[in-house]
Amino acid sequence: MKPVIVREIPRSPKDPERIRRLLETSVATIAESQEKLGLLSPSIRPIQPGLKAAGTAVTVKCADGDNLMLHVALEVAKPGDVIVMTTISGSANGVFGELLATSFRVRGISAFITDSGVRDVAILREMKYPVWSKYITAVGTSKNRPGWVNVPISIDGVIINPGDFILADDDGVVVVPRGEIDEVLAKAKEREERENVVRKRLLNGELTVDIYNFRKVISDLGIKYVNSLDEVLKKEENK
Amino acid sequence: MKPVIVREIPRSPKDPERIRRLLETSVATIAESQEKLGLLSPSIRPIQPGLKAAGTAVTVKCADGDNLMLHVALEVAKPGDVIVMTTISGSANGVFGELLATSFRVRGISAFITDSGVRDVAILREMKYPVWSKYITAVGTSKNRPGWVNVPISIDGVIINPGDFILADDDGVVVVPRGEIDEVLAKAKEREERENVVRKRLLNGELTVDIYNFRKVISDLGIKYVNSLDEVLKKEENK
Amino acid sequence: MKPVIVREIPRSPKDPERIRRLLETSVATIAESQEKLGLLSPSIRPIQPGLKAAGTAVTVKCADGDNLMLHVALEVAKPGDVIVMTTISGSANGVFGELLATSFRVRGISAFITDSGVRDVAILREMKYPVWSKYITAVGTSKNRPGWVNVPISIDGVIINPGDFILADDDGVVVVPRGEIDEVLAKAKEREERENVVRKRLLNGELTVDIYNFRKVISDLGIKYVNSLDEVLKKEENK
Amino acid sequence: MKPVIVREIPRSPKDPERIRRLLETSVATIAESQEKLGLLSPSIRPIQPGLKAAGTAVTVKCADGDNLMLHVALEVAKPGDVIVMTTISGSANGVFGELLATSFRVRGISAFITDSGVRDVAILREMKYPVWSKYITAVGTSKNRPGWVNVPISIDGVIINPGDFILADDDGVVVVPRGEIDEVLAKAKEREERENVVRKRLLNGELTVDIYNFRKVISDLGIKYVNSLDEVLKKEENK
Amino acid sequence: MKPVIVREIPRSPKDPERIRRLLETSVATIAESQEKLGLLSPSIRPIQPGLKAAGTAVTVKCADGDNLMLHVALEVAKPGDVIVMTTISGSANGVFGELLATSFRVRGISAFITDSGVRDVAILREMKYPVWSKYITAVGTSKNRPGWVNVPISIDGVIINPGDFILADDDGVVVVPRGEIDEVLAKAKEREERENVVRKRLLNGELTVDIYNFRKVISDLGIKYVNSLDEVLKKEENK
Amino acid sequence: MKPVIVREIPRSPKDPERIRRLLETSVATIAESQEKLGLLSPSIRPIQPGLKAAGTAVTVKCADGDNLMLHVALEVAKPGDVIVMTTISGSANGVFGELLATSFRVRGISAFITDSGVRDVAILREMKYPVWSKYITAVGTSKNRPGWVNVPISIDGVIINPGDFILADDDGVVVVPRGEIDEVLAKAKEREERENVVRKRLLNGELTVDIYNFRKVISDLGIKYVNSLDEVLKKEENK
Repeated sequence: MKPVIVREIPRSPKDPERIRRLLETSVATIAESQEKLGLLSPSIRPIQPGLKAAGTAVTVKCADGDNLMLHVALEVAKPGDVIVMTTISGSANGVFGELLATSFRVRGISAFITDSGVRDVAILREMKYPVWSKYITAVGTSKNRPGWVNVPISIDGVIINPGDFILADDDGVVVVPRGEIDEVLAKAKEREERENVVRKRLLNGELTVDIYNFRKVISDLGIKYVNSLDEVLKKEENK
Repeated sequence: MKPVIVREIPRSPKDPERIRRLLETSVATIAESQEKLGLLSPSIRPIQPGLKAAGTAVTVKCADGDNLMLHVALEVAKPGDVIVMTTISGSANGVFGELLATSFRVRGISAFITDSGVRDVAILREMKYPVWSKYITAVGTSKNRPGWVNVPISIDGVIINPGDFILADDDGVVVVPRGEIDEVLAKAKEREERENVVRKRLLNGELTVDIYNFRKVISDLGIKYVNSLDEVLKKEENK
Repeated sequence: MKPVIVREIPRSPKDPERIRRLLETSVATIAESQEKLGLLSPSIRPIQPGLKAAGTAVTVKCADGDNLMLHVALEVAKPGDVIVMTTISGSANGVFGELLATSFRVRGISAFITDSGVRDVAILREMKYPVWSKYITAVGTSKNRPGWVNVPISIDGVIINPGDFILADDDGVVVVPRGEIDEVLAKAKEREERENVVRKRLLNGELTVDIYNFRKVISDLGIKYVNSLDEVLKKEENK
Repeated sequence: MKPVIVREIPRSPKDPERIRRLLETSVATIAESQEKLGLLSPSIRPIQPGLKAAGTAVTVKCADGDNLMLHVALEVAKPGDVIVMTTISGSANGVFGELLATSFRVRGISAFITDSGVRDVAILREMKYPVWSKYITAVGTSKNRPGWVNVPISIDGVIINPGDFILADDDGVVVVPRGEIDEVLAKAKEREERENVVRKRLLNGELTVDIYNFRKVISDLGIKYVNSLDEVLKKEENK
Repeated sequence: MKPVIVREIPRSPKDPERIRRLLETSVATIAESQEKLGLLSPSIRPIQPGLKAAGTAVTVKCADGDNLMLHVALEVAKPGDVIVMTTISGSANGVFGELLATSFRVRGISAFITDSGVRDVAILREMKYPVWSKYITAVGTSKNRPGWVNVPISIDGVIINPGDFILADDDGVVVVPRGEIDEVLAKAKEREERENVVRKRLLNGELTVDIYNFRKVISDLGIKYVNSLDEVLKKEENK
Repeated sequence: MKPVIVREIPRSPKDPERIRRLLETSVATIAESQEKLGLLSPSIRPIQPGLKAAGTAVTVKCADGDNLMLHVALEVAKPGDVIVMTTISGSANGVFGELLATSFRVRGISAFITDSGVRDVAILREMKYPVWSKYITAVGTSKNRPGWVNVPISIDGVIINPGDFILADDDGVVVVPRGEIDEVLAKAKEREERENVVRKRLLNGELTVDIYNFRKVISDLGIKYVNSLDEVLKKEENK
């Protein structure tokens, strides 16, 4: 596909409410609610602990070592969006720093997510600007090479379409396809309710093997309990 | 070895005192006291700074991407134990999260250590539950595949027998074989006493080259002092 | 080159002022001011956030898994120096811990930087001693093998000459060749002034595409704006 | 998206001719002809040198450590197709071995490409069956978990749609989107013709700096020629 | 455990026959026959394709960057043994080269396996001496530090007891515990017989989905077949 | 240092003879003869087995993802030189392919060595052109960014000065500083003579523990021989 800048992403009046509900859950819960799909690689980490962010994805694909299109993306993004950036064949350069973060904040962008690097992290941390990246590095970028804004991109095996929902917290980043957001949120809610029940029982001293009926699983798998390792080793020896 | 659950690990009435003494030292000191043996790979990191934990090892080996046996291990573990988990051929899944941590705390388990991943780290950090892991990831696990509890396991080249002693701090994780704990603790104490003396001398401005008599080592190795790099380069040139 | 200890590094009465000015800038700014040169690999990270350090480089090259020469370097280093250490073919051992940090602090050494590992990090963090390393590990070192002090070394592709300037912060570590320090500092100052202007405009809601005239770049590259992804996909299909 | 098996991929009567022409070029030429897009990560390597393969992509996404859907893909694939497989969150298991290769060959599948692992490589090499994978490993898979056949997948940042064209050789694997194949092939042809001219001139002893007019680039960049390094170093020193 | 050299490993008159039968199977078959246990990491690779080796394990644990104990192991090893070597905390040095290979061959050692490095690989390949290692590197070792011969060691999570059986081929290396060898060999034989039947059916054009009855699995998992991707996407959109 | 092209490297009439003698030895022997110094990282591998090359180093440092200066280097290089190329902060692009290899061969360049990538490896292998690289990849480069020819560079911790000697074989690449070449060659010769003697003794069935007198080392280290592992374990238990 030729380099292109797409001005609009799919949006719905329901999005602010969906984003609000996403923020009440967690990346782990959403990932479970969509059968482990949509998780970016664990190598993409928050640059500081304790932040959580969600929003609709504005996608950016830059040339390796260049961030021109990131500047362009900022123009077409709307408050509440999350900007997600990758490069053609992978790049460890610092594509985002204090000045861009300042502008992101002024324009109401909820977070920046990239499989490249970021810099000025001391200031980004003071600003508490939410950033998830693969690298922290002061290596800068050129700003003169073509790329794409708001076309489907992929990061480490996860396809991100413009308008998809993003949730990021200390566990990492998860992508929810736009067409599945309501179903995923509903499942997340159910899951959390189930977990609330389990949590109480655990606090009462019950065991997960009882709560989840794992004793039967163990028994069905034919796994035996023995009292000491010596029993096992002796049996092995006699074989 | 067939999947099996061993209920008992070697224990001794001296263990609480041994664990207390372990907690007064550090991973670095213990590692030195057993000639660098027993250190898990530096890729296994605490999920937050500032925690230290010690205990007797309950060992778990799960199928890749499954954590069934971890639930079982919790049942056989006793207060003060550390649960150490690995998988058959390595797995980056998040095998441990908030619910298990809740139950671990209720049951008095001192720490969780794994070469797989963990999730819900924001909450685990608030709980200050002591966890050392190779990955942070929201990818969940199945709970239906056979494995082992309390058999010898190994993580990155270190063999851990059930009942061995574990100490973990910001430097990483060290394993002390049960049969060697008293000797190691004694050596650790001696080492710390020697270091106390050295620390005072250093604070007085003395140099390690003098305290440890490294000047003789340098001289025996035939290493010369020169005043400037140019001297060396000129000599090289003339050769 | 035969193992050797060089006592003196190039120094100038201007150095304290240069170091003071370095500390007012940042690794990212210095890296930009010397065209991305001099940045150590992003795998060399501070052991805690929030510290910044600068100084003249005392260089050390040890045998793998040995730190004898680090002790020697401490003797020839002067207050305000930064000690930078590497090994012959790469080593993940913990070459630096609490005792050396104590002595480094007493002797006024500004920071320790290595592509090996460090240990006792809990105490180093309490001491707020500035350390950048590739590994955190309790594996200790021998102290009996030959090496070099104050000869040119290189870490991950960056050559460091004794007497070069080092600046390290949360973004990583940058090396400025002694002969270029004044020019680099001047450029850094200009850059910061330009960035101050840009920052104000961004805070006023202006966009980088306008401030930096990227609209012309985009137009010169022939990149088109379209309103929706469907437009692009339809055009692709018709081809 | 729910697990699903899509029976048909986009096909055209022109495909055999397109595949034939792809095989006359190379991965490097195709990659250049689409501006570096579409290259899978260099960590995906052929299991033996000297093989080249091309075809239309049948895409497969399996659960981690499972290859059930690969068996299903074989049923819907047609002679001349290339089967490209990935997993939900990355897996190093051996998902393909001698038996599957036998069946792939019988059914006329042109190649197998995966970011997981393969096994029985000694036999696969004897069979000269074309395989590109990230790992070689004997760890097997389960065959009982849901997945997808012929939906868009992505591997290390490259999106692969069912019906896209695949070319693989000793340099790696490249994906050409179906809608762009004719344009890419045309550009590849032009590129090869230009390279034929250049090759002849190089064989005549001409230099690329002359053929490509790089002398002007050098001069425009302001890069100077000097006769010896000493000249440069002396100039640096005098600054 | 204190450094020690154990002269004898468990042996049985049945071993030569067991080794002969191991050599008739493959690493993949053995790994399956013991439920994926015992496989060394895929990063341990043969230094050339086409060799296969098996034998009883003589185990060696050296200091990092030292190979003294490897020389000692050679003395206690018997013809037909495989020498398996690791180090205390991991080492990339070249611990084995032409001279040791010469002596290994003269003494009838079947293979050398290590998670360190080897060198002189050009000559080792000419000699066709069977070697599996993690690194190829010319960095040499010291020969003066204590270690262990014939104690339990572990490599990347697999425990190897002296006297265990080793099989290595182009897929990697697998360890079979001595107490389980006969059962594993029996299972391997059954598996090969089953695979022979499957292979014939595949060569006749049958599909694995039919042979293994995967159609029922697919159906039980509720996975649907559709004719085109558009069907799926349309359904998603309408949600 | 400003981008610059240095036309001349140090040369001597003795160089052809030195190179001839280098080719008679091996990377492993040379590395030993200079105390493990000068070895490039084991991640830099030959693109095919069986080639060996040596020559005087023409050094090149390019911008990341650019190879302009490589073309320039070819102009100033002389027959028998080896061109060694790195980039400012590391790059995985394919900086060298068939056309450059053609020109390198025509101009008599002995080998190409890089910590970036190369492509067209199928053809390079047919040409048997000697290449050592970190990556194989079809990702191309720009040809328009400034860099350096014949200034000191470093690759993974090894400094390479223009005019230094390079030897590369299946074990990797070693750099010998110009000022040390004669001494290193002399030591290499002595080493080979010593090894010839040892080889003969090994072929006669002697053991290295006897030839090198390791029995005394073992005894001095206090390492005991025992007959079985049980002896050791029993002793441990009784402690």
